[in-house]
Amino acid sequence: LTGMGIAPHCLCINYERRMVPLKITKKIDLIPKGPHCSNVQVIANLKSGDQICLNPRAPWVKEFIKKRYICLTSCIY
Amino acid sequence: LTGMGIAPHCLCINYERRMVPLKITKKIDLIPKGPHCSNVQVIANLKSGDQICLNPRAPWVKEFIKKRYICLTSCIY
Repeated sequence: LTGMGIAPHCLCINYERRMVPLKITKKIDLIPKGPHCSNVQVIANLKSGDQICLNPRAPWVKEFIKKRYICLTSCIY
Repeated sequence: LTGMGIAPHCLCINYERRMVPLKITKKIDLIPKGPHCSNVQVIANLKSGDQICLNPRAPWVKEFIKKRYICLTSCIY
């Protein structure tokens, strides 16, 4: 998996396009936009230790967060 | 703000009931359920350094994440 970039301000400079299986995900970080970065940043921390940036505008990322974490539509927990 | 508890398995044992202003929030952690904890955990990391647990089933938490981070309804970024 790729998609993590380090920049002076934003942590994310590009995004992982493939879906990330929940079973390899340890934690998702949601970082609001601010003076340091003009974009919301969504970073998946994998069990492997890798960090990858997800696109908060990508439909699969929205579905992933909606279904797995905030239980908006088809609640699975 | 309160609501953070340390337990042997789950990090969250109770939830902050009040709304958390975005401007004091540095990062939100979304931790999936798993063998360590049977609940999804949503932890707000504040600029003060405090960490507070949010209830992923609470309507304001869902709205907070939807509007601020995953741009589902009224997109504000």
